[in-house]
Formats: sequence, structure tokens, C-alpha cells
Amino acid sequence: MIDLSDIVIRNAESDDYHRVISVMPEWWGGRDLSSAVQKIFFIHFHKTTFIAEKDNTLCGFLIGFLSQSRLDEGYITFAGVHPELRRVGLGRNLYERFFEICRNDNRLIVRSCTSPINTLSIEFHQRLGFIIEQGDTIINGVEVSANYLGAGDHKVLFKKDLSLVK
Amino acid sequence: MIDLSDIVIRNAESDDYHRVISVMPEWWGGRDLSSAVQKIFFIHFHKTTFIAEKDNTLCGFLIGFLSQSRLDEGYITFAGVHPELRRVGLGRNLYERFFEICRNDNRLIVRSCTSPINTLSIEFHQRLGFIIEQGDTIINGVEVSANYLGAGDHKVLFKKDLSLVK
Repeated sequence: MIDLSDIVIRNAESDDYHRVISVMPEWWGGRDLSSAVQKIFFIHFHKTTFIAEKDNTLCGFLIGFLSQSRLDEGYITFAGVHPELRRVGLGRNLYERFFEICRNDNRLIVRSCTSPINTLSIEFHQRLGFIIEQGDTIINGVEVSANYLGAGDHKVLFKKDLSLVK
Repeated sequence: MIDLSDIVIRNAESDDYHRVISVMPEWWGGRDLSSAVQKIFFIHFHKTTFIAEKDNTLCGFLIGFLSQSRLDEGYITFAGVHPELRRVGLGRNLYERFFEICRNDNRLIVRSCTSPINTLSIEFHQRLGFIIEQGDTIINGVEVSANYLGAGDHKVLFKKDLSLVK
């Protein structure tokens, strides 16, 4: 078991892309979501992309950026935590670092999304104070935006207002 | 044949993503590169993402953003022109619009990349004054960075200095 206190969080570098891609099927229960993650994020958004690691073991990551269309908004495009390290605060820590950058840039809206089947992710975002945005269908009691990121790629859309206390 | 003078170029909207994805295999000679294009670019980088169209026909597109790691740099992640409209200046027009945004933001470096097999793209970038960056291997006489965007995803890397006249 990894000791949480020994984990270092730092900004991502280009080469971290390959490490992140390599763990994705294992961390997502066999689902290969690697096409959602691109190396250019690690190159061009490294200030808002974080790696959590202990020695050479990848413990978690968050890939985010500051929206260039919506100047009051930050977007988290992908995040993950090692299966043995969930529910201990590491994901929250990664998100809080991103929130801090958004606040410092006067961006008080943070958005993200997840697959309707990823109940762990839905619960995680709700614990962190994200609300689920209205969709156009309901799956398992949750509002879902059908085909949001492409044909068949349904998403639950999350929004957090950083000006609210939670 | 489409008359170039009737083509309108505008900033992209979210729904343009689906139109762009739908033409990609045809425009790239059957190669399906759609995983390189994500809808979030259309949502969050719409100021640097352009659609060229005539009536309802998609004529070209450019997806770019301002690097948040490298504050003197803009990055073009993908661009394409309808096969019947190549070599008439539409691609150059799309690139020039992106260069203008970069100049206005005091970003004088623009980077992009392409596959070593895409000789049309390599020649296009060279005509526009991009230089090819040193790689770690040579394919068909061109410097290539092997596995640059992932395993097997070799790229020719382009760089243009906007302070130089070309």
C-alpha cells in the first residue's frame, strides 16, 4: 500500500504522457480511454496539468486548461487516481490545485464531464461541490447530454462555482 | 467547382466538430485521423479555430490555440482543406488568420506538425515559411521525430518565426 504522505505532486512534462497512457486501461477497469488524452496537453498546458507520483509509481494525474473562449472558466479534461489510492483525498488534492489556479486567474467556473457509467466519478464530482447540468436524457437517474463529445459519446456535465463555499 | 470568392471564414462553434469529423476520411485519402480532433477544442478555443464554408459545404478548417506553457507561442493542432480547393490559397488564408491572432498577443512563434507520409502538408508548411525542426531520424529525406505524439505516431515538426519576413 502506498503511503499518501510520500506522494509528490508536480506539473506534468511531455514524457509523462506516455506513463499516463500506459496505466489507463488498468485504472479504468479495462476501458481504453486513451484517445481522450493527447500529448499536446502535456506540452502546452503543463501549468494546469499535474502528476502525482511516489518514486517512479504514478499515483494520479489531472489534465486541465484555462478556456480561451470563456474567460471566466477552467476545464478539466481528464483526471485519474490509482485504484489503490481512491477515496483518500488525492483526487480532491489534484482538483484543489486546479481550482487555485482558476481563482488566481479570476475564473470562478470550473467544468468537467464524465461517462454516465462512471458512478465513481459522478459521486466524486458531487462530493467536491460540482452540480450536474441539465441534459437531454436521463440514464440511471442522472441527467445526461447524449452524444455530447461525439456519436455515442454521452456525457454527464459538471459545473462548479468557485465563489460558493463547499 | 466551388468559387473561392464566395467562401466565408468564421470562428468555429461546438457543432462544427461533427461536420469536421465527418469529412476527415475523405479529405485525408481514407486515413481516419478523427481521434486527433476533440470537440473541446471547438468549445474552448473557438477564437483560434476557424471554419471556411460556402452555404452548407465545409471548405476548410483550422484548429489552433495559444500555448499556456509557452507564452510566446501559438500551436496549430489540425487543419484541412477540401480536396477540390487545394493550392488556391484557402489554407494560407486560414493560417494567416491564426498568425494575426498570435501577433496581436505578442506570440511570434507558431508550431505545428504532420505525418511524414503527408508530403502535401510538408510542402504547404514550407511554402508558408515554416522550418522543419531537427528530429531523431530521417524518412524520405525529411527530419522526423519518432513516436512524437505516441507509440508509432511519428511527426515532422514545424516552426515559424513570425518576426521573419516570408
